[in-house]
Amino acid sequence: MSVTAAKGFTAAGIVAGIKESGNPDLALVVNEGPRLAAAGVFTSNRVKAAPVRWSEQVLKGGQVSAVVLNSGGANACTGPLGFQDTHATAEKAAEVLGGNAGEIAVASTGLIGVRLPMDKLLPGIGKAAAELSAHGGEKAAIAIKTTDTVHKTAVAQGDGWTVGGMAKGAGMLAPGLATMLVVLTTDADVDAAGLDAALRSATRQTFDRVDSDGCMSTNDTVLLLASGASGTVPAADAFAEAVRTVCDDLARQLIGDAEGASKDIRIEVVGAATEDDAVEVGRSIARNNLLKCAIHGEDPNWGRVLSAIGTTSAAFDPDRLNVAINGVWVCKEGSVGEDRDLVDMRYREVRITADLSAGTESAVIWANDLTADYVHENSAYSS
Amino acid sequence: MSVTAAKGFTAAGIVAGIKESGNPDLALVVNEGPRLAAAGVFTSNRVKAAPVRWSEQVLKGGQVSAVVLNSGGANACTGPLGFQDTHATAEKAAEVLGGNAGEIAVASTGLIGVRLPMDKLLPGIGKAAAELSAHGGEKAAIAIKTTDTVHKTAVAQGDGWTVGGMAKGAGMLAPGLATMLVVLTTDADVDAAGLDAALRSATRQTFDRVDSDGCMSTNDTVLLLASGASGTVPAADAFAEAVRTVCDDLARQLIGDAEGASKDIRIEVVGAATEDDAVEVGRSIARNNLLKCAIHGEDPNWGRVLSAIGTTSAAFDPDRLNVAINGVWVCKEGSVGEDRDLVDMRYREVRITADLSAGTESAVIWANDLTADYVHENSAYSS
Repeated sequence: MSVTAAKGFTAAGIVAGIKESGNPDLALVVNEGPRLAAAGVFTSNRVKAAPVRWSEQVLKGGQVSAVVLNSGGANACTGPLGFQDTHATAEKAAEVLGGNAGEIAVASTGLIGVRLPMDKLLPGIGKAAAELSAHGGEKAAIAIKTTDTVHKTAVAQGDGWTVGGMAKGAGMLAPGLATMLVVLTTDADVDAAGLDAALRSATRQTFDRVDSDGCMSTNDTVLLLASGASGTVPAADAFAEAVRTVCDDLARQLIGDAEGASKDIRIEVVGAATEDDAVEVGRSIARNNLLKCAIHGEDPNWGRVLSAIGTTSAAFDPDRLNVAINGVWVCKEGSVGEDRDLVDMRYREVRITADLSAGTESAVIWANDLTADYVHENSAYSS
Repeated sequence: MSVTAAKGFTAAGIVAGIKESGNPDLALVVNEGPRLAAAGVFTSNRVKAAPVRWSEQVLKGGQVSAVVLNSGGANACTGPLGFQDTHATAEKAAEVLGGNAGEIAVASTGLIGVRLPMDKLLPGIGKAAAELSAHGGEKAAIAIKTTDTVHKTAVAQGDGWTVGGMAKGAGMLAPGLATMLVVLTTDADVDAAGLDAALRSATRQTFDRVDSDGCMSTNDTVLLLASGASGTVPAADAFAEAVRTVCDDLARQLIGDAEGASKDIRIEVVGAATEDDAVEVGRSIARNNLLKCAIHGEDPNWGRVLSAIGTTSAAFDPDRLNVAINGVWVCKEGSVGEDRDLVDMRYREVRITADLSAGTESAVIWANDLTADYVHENSAYSS
């Protein structure tokens, strides 16, 4: 499964020694062709890690022969020397694998503001190359984990072709993508423009609507590589749907494994005048710390939902807002609705529906609760 | 001190029985004249509590003879009946005190979405009126507390006149004012327009730059009442400065008593192209949950500061950003700076300086850390 579910790809995940823990920390994904088409979506954070700046340049060419991914260090805020480290990584991979460094994408994840141990990373690329395999997808997915408790893979089958992928991410999940690295592969025969269209459409409705903790990373990278090895040119709609399915699956896995979370919150905004309004309201609810605490406490505190809606510029009349929590309309027309004691919040998934009574558009945003475990994980992370 | 520091005001704080705890929950502040000039600033949340909607109307007249404040219930999201409750509160106060209900402001704080127990609140107004005193300011400040651990008062002396005030607030502190009720009084002889100018200028630089948890309340109310009892017309500048001093003092007290906080974080953004840029960057830093956790863990994690800056639209070059934590420039030119081990974070106050290297403007935003205690307080609040 994972990035080797589609034909024409090999992958590996190994211990390069970047992490002090001795856990796997370097992954390689190689497109064996015949095609090398690729598209990418990156963080919208203006403070971008060196590998993001490098890979953005690589993707402009629309061709990627291999991706080098490391955990154990983000290589963000490391200045010109950090950028040189990324460049050296691509050069080393080109030397080992053959090919052109300008077609090798690099992705990093871990602590910001620390240089990578290049004396370990560079030899690791050779080691990984020696272990490349058409069954290496799982190992690659494992090697990109940071505080993830499980590795994340997904796959969708088309008519004679396949889309597969892997993701890491836990915390710093927010619009403009999460602290996440995602590599998707397909053996469908799709050119770079077709990959770009499918990927942008998919991420807009999946990864971009995941908001674990409101924080936007410096390193988010989502790549889609096509080998064309199936020899099949898919219908654009079917291909886009398969990419969206894999992205949606991975996005849900990210939320389900977010740092310290005890609840996954599905926020559906309906009755919006525009989709943008629905997304803005959904994100405002998703980022409200007081509400996130209330959900953690299994308290159907709809007043905090209304407070969050009230901070947006979306079209609505406060006296026509309705809110349901797990199917119980606890707020009707901006005031007290059904009995809040009817809301059963024992399960991990909590569904909030906010009806703006202002139109017919809707959107779904996924978030997490705010917990003492989140505080603990993130107050001790770099020390 | 408090609202009775200035001449021409009486106040009271009593137990009306609104709170189940039996703690004081009703305050009355009466302007005994000769003037009844007033100004007010309210939450910018579009979901406004009934007392906010009422008091906004009252303030349009520029005259306030009395303010009724209750804790134990926000009277927000309570529909038309909730508005009738606020109206009845003002009518009752007018009946007891004499005067016009249209000149009586009302402020409420507590849980959203619950009707107030009017059978307790209305008799409480009579009880409070019987206890009005020129020394009642402290008791009034105590009666408006919710999860505040201490009551908050401040005073500034002018040349022959005084500005005093009280505040409550703990949590839900964010731009557009905090979950706070603030009543300021002065015996200076200033008309409503003069009060309005001084109050808006002061709140813009004080309460509006406090951001404890990113959440904006439905009930925020800041009132400034002038009795003219000193017989002195102050210089506009001196008066504005006194109002700003009292607001600043109260705002700092709010941050110092925010729910569950263990650190007060002073975020100073310098080198900004515009003051708006400085404020936008300051707020983005103030609201970054990952940074707030790091500060709680006494971890000078400047990478999270840069991540937060990167999400703004302010003018800056990522490679020219500098960040100091408690005076140590841990980030220079977007990369590693002085040794982070030099940063001493043992004390409650933590100072972050973010230099955008893009101009000469600056702003200070105050925030709190994110703690397990915050999660605990806000996950158990309404259950």
